[in-house]
Amino acid sequence: MGYKTDIEIAREASKRPIQEIGAKLGISAEDLVPYGHDKAKVSADFIAAQSSKENGKLILVTAINPTPAGEGKTTTTVGLGDGLNAIGKKAAICIREASLGPCFGMKGGAAGGGYAQVVPMEDMNLHFTGDFHAITSAHNLLSAMIDNHIYWGNALEIDLRRVVWRRVMDMNDRALRDIVTSLGGVANGFPRQAGFDITVASEVMAILCLAKDLDDLQKRLGDIIVAYRRDRTPVYCRDIKADGAMTVLLKDAMQPNLVQTLENNPAFVHGGPFANIAHGCNSVVATTTALKIADYVVTEAGFGADLGAEKFMDIKCRHAGLAPDAVVIVATVRAMKMNGGVKKDDLGSENVAAVKEGCANLGRHIENVKGFGVPAVVAINHFVTDTDAEVEAIKDYVASLGSEAILCKHWAEGSKGIEALATRVSEIAESGVAKFETLYPNEMGLFEKIETVAKKIYRADEVIADKKIRDQLKQWEDAGYGALPVCMAKTQYSFTTDPNVRGAPTGHSIPIREVRLSAGAGFIVAICGEIMTMPGLPRVPSSESIMLNDQGQIEGLF
Amino acid sequence: MGYKTDIEIAREASKRPIQEIGAKLGISAEDLVPYGHDKAKVSADFIAAQSSKENGKLILVTAINPTPAGEGKTTTTVGLGDGLNAIGKKAAICIREASLGPCFGMKGGAAGGGYAQVVPMEDMNLHFTGDFHAITSAHNLLSAMIDNHIYWGNALEIDLRRVVWRRVMDMNDRALRDIVTSLGGVANGFPRQAGFDITVASEVMAILCLAKDLDDLQKRLGDIIVAYRRDRTPVYCRDIKADGAMTVLLKDAMQPNLVQTLENNPAFVHGGPFANIAHGCNSVVATTTALKIADYVVTEAGFGADLGAEKFMDIKCRHAGLAPDAVVIVATVRAMKMNGGVKKDDLGSENVAAVKEGCANLGRHIENVKGFGVPAVVAINHFVTDTDAEVEAIKDYVASLGSEAILCKHWAEGSKGIEALATRVSEIAESGVAKFETLYPNEMGLFEKIETVAKKIYRADEVIADKKIRDQLKQWEDAGYGALPVCMAKTQYSFTTDPNVRGAPTGHSIPIREVRLSAGAGFIVAICGEIMTMPGLPRVPSSESIMLNDQGQIEGLF
Repeated sequence: MGYKTDIEIAREASKRPIQEIGAKLGISAEDLVPYGHDKAKVSADFIAAQSSKENGKLILVTAINPTPAGEGKTTTTVGLGDGLNAIGKKAAICIREASLGPCFGMKGGAAGGGYAQVVPMEDMNLHFTGDFHAITSAHNLLSAMIDNHIYWGNALEIDLRRVVWRRVMDMNDRALRDIVTSLGGVANGFPRQAGFDITVASEVMAILCLAKDLDDLQKRLGDIIVAYRRDRTPVYCRDIKADGAMTVLLKDAMQPNLVQTLENNPAFVHGGPFANIAHGCNSVVATTTALKIADYVVTEAGFGADLGAEKFMDIKCRHAGLAPDAVVIVATVRAMKMNGGVKKDDLGSENVAAVKEGCANLGRHIENVKGFGVPAVVAINHFVTDTDAEVEAIKDYVASLGSEAILCKHWAEGSKGIEALATRVSEIAESGVAKFETLYPNEMGLFEKIETVAKKIYRADEVIADKKIRDQLKQWEDAGYGALPVCMAKTQYSFTTDPNVRGAPTGHSIPIREVRLSAGAGFIVAICGEIMTMPGLPRVPSSESIMLNDQGQIEGLF
Repeated sequence: MGYKTDIEIAREASKRPIQEIGAKLGISAEDLVPYGHDKAKVSADFIAAQSSKENGKLILVTAINPTPAGEGKTTTTVGLGDGLNAIGKKAAICIREASLGPCFGMKGGAAGGGYAQVVPMEDMNLHFTGDFHAITSAHNLLSAMIDNHIYWGNALEIDLRRVVWRRVMDMNDRALRDIVTSLGGVANGFPRQAGFDITVASEVMAILCLAKDLDDLQKRLGDIIVAYRRDRTPVYCRDIKADGAMTVLLKDAMQPNLVQTLENNPAFVHGGPFANIAHGCNSVVATTTALKIADYVVTEAGFGADLGAEKFMDIKCRHAGLAPDAVVIVATVRAMKMNGGVKKDDLGSENVAAVKEGCANLGRHIENVKGFGVPAVVAINHFVTDTDAEVEAIKDYVASLGSEAILCKHWAEGSKGIEALATRVSEIAESGVAKFETLYPNEMGLFEKIETVAKKIYRADEVIADKKIRDQLKQWEDAGYGALPVCMAKTQYSFTTDPNVRGAPTGHSIPIREVRLSAGAGFIVAICGEIMTMPGLPRVPSSESIMLNDQGQIEGLF
């Protein structure tokens, strides 16, 4: 149809020097640490100097349960940021960094699409400013120091069978999931079972994204539980004396990265924790800094609103003292049709009935968001095959719930396609109607917190967890971890634990298979189903076709 | 004695913006890719545009066999660069990047010392511009793609027992030397023995340092042998289709890094291959680029002249068509005394007789260097406890060989302490007396090449190698690898394979335990003794005391 690809559009971007982008937010060239001409870190000194300023408005972009049709949450986040700037607001966006590993597997990273992209997208999908490499190094330094401690006499009396700190690599490498280390004799240590996770699954990543500053970072790193003794008492990172050196390795990575949208508006891209075993939001440092220097900050949370927005509210906002002023829920006609039972191959033809049927999923997310005391507006991310009748069906449905759905054409048109949404969002945010509150208080019991999320957000009848899990939660409460929030690990495709159940199901149960304590990051992970913390590569990985072309441009990354 | 530490001196550096440093060599701000305000990469476009220019003079800094007393090869390289600039020459230095792993073990990196340092030394000892992280990623992508290929059906018929491509991590982690991967069942692949080396030991590192440009890089990456089939035929990286994506990952890392000395002179810091299983020199791209834009380029090679200089001449110069115009051999009074039999604790008292005795080691290195057709001058790196009589003893000895030794006080005084050496080196280089030739021609047989190095450089009577090794070398000759140079892996502490034999021994044998083919890098490794490609951490690793101080400065890294 003559549309340009994302990469073609990105290559045509007329980028401005990053110092110009920083200047839009009052960041001087001296306060920017450049990485090339189009990327920079914002200096820690500048960030510290903003602390007494008032916050701008915080807008969260979330979505319905994802479908294979794609929703465009990042694209809408970028578009809304550009749209707010286009209507005269000083707005910045805050998104996550992309993981290197998956880029060589199935797909490129998350820099938006069409005319709502962040650039330079090649760099963002490769090494970027090295943050993830720093996290990998810090994580693996701790791993090496644990085995080294055991090798030299194990003064801390670590139980070799209970080392819970694994290693990480920013690569999809299934062969490293489950390994035996220290083979080969005396010089190589004591053989034990171990394994690697992908870097985004590291607790160090979650900590970097939740830490307020370097002091808080070091404290949280020190709090990590790395192993247990035979008597089940925990051994902390601090006992291994790794927290100082890990902080040194993460010093630069703690400074948020500034890049730009295709329309030369500021975009902070910082942090990228796994959205299931962690909270899946960009860094607290980036968000709080952006709030001090922009009037509007548009950010996003991983997966659908049942997972991403809930964790944004109950983990990130709780930890950082943030409160969203408005929430945008992204939906598409195509995704509504899939929720209404249409197969992916049949999405091209009009089907208003299926759209109406699928809207139940959207409706529940709207209700859930409102439950946090925050007004929600729906962005219909326009796709070229959408018909007017289908779009109207969504608008009517949302109106019937007392909310509003706005058609957005930022993918094809950039900011001018999303000005209506930008205007409405700014009205809502300025109105002060948001009365944010978390779903549950700190003092609620850990199991009750899990039940609260399962019943109020997932609309389950019950939580199934055997005595061992309930006892574990009690033990953590006794050990002083009772005030932590819970981080639910569940399929993103459904309100239930069955990825095939779309729409707005009721009457289901949520089984908890396992619970994990992230003592440094500050949450309890409740695992409902399988969790894969190290992906594999597909039969034909995309890395086979990634290469430099004759012009020295990168091909195949997207 | 009131001397400032290296880090105190480095922190007092009055650094200039890196654009000013680049301008000294005619590199415009647009051709520099900044990493912060004091580091930059030189753009590939700029490098390509210099190719038709004439080369400046190339000075190699090497040393006697290292002793625990320390020689100061990097310090002298930096000092000589500053000295040449001080006497009005346009000079640049080219040194290697530091490995992250060892910084957390025993010591900091190699950025010089005293008033002859390269800055910012903290960054250089940590992530720097991310080159080593890029090498780690490229190496491990290939590893993941090999196991993924096997997982999905092994169409190339790789023999699981003969996968020779390991994984790497830039960390001292002995637990990873020898592991079993892919445990845990069907979904994780086929269990096999594997292991990790430290990143500097990666063939990808050696390739990056020898490749002329990105095309050459990709060709060499493709040439890597990753495994063998049951019939012993090799499987190449190219067969796995990883070479394109690896090149993309290394695109930025191929651009040399520019930093500055304490005296604000340009320093290229690029590449850092292991000096035993690889050639141990900084990158060809950095050296050849520096030669195009500076009148003098001072570079160094790993370990003593028997290993480092020999590989510089026979591998790097051969591959890149370079020819040194002069060689500086660094010696110290203390190291001469140790070669003369003095124990480390007794180095503080004058001992002219021991100095004279130890000079035999220096003498042999002078002879060896001259054997390459290149004039040699000795730099006596001054230490505060040296007496005049001891210094004179070295000078007299060197004069008796028809060469010259010059006392250098760059550590304490910077460039003004080394002007005499700088003047003499420039005279020699300009005189055109150097008639460089490699030690052996390409067409010599592989075993004869090993014998030639052993007899002419190490002064051994014979090379001991059993039939299996000789047959292997013959096979590689038949397979078309006969024209490659040999890369000797031997202790750096002695001309023999026994690290305790100092001085200038004769009558020894060189046993070859193993030979390895680095088909991508382009050399045959001949291993004489144990080779450790993954170090461990000591009982009390330095990482335990690395931390940020109250001023946010890094403590404990040096």
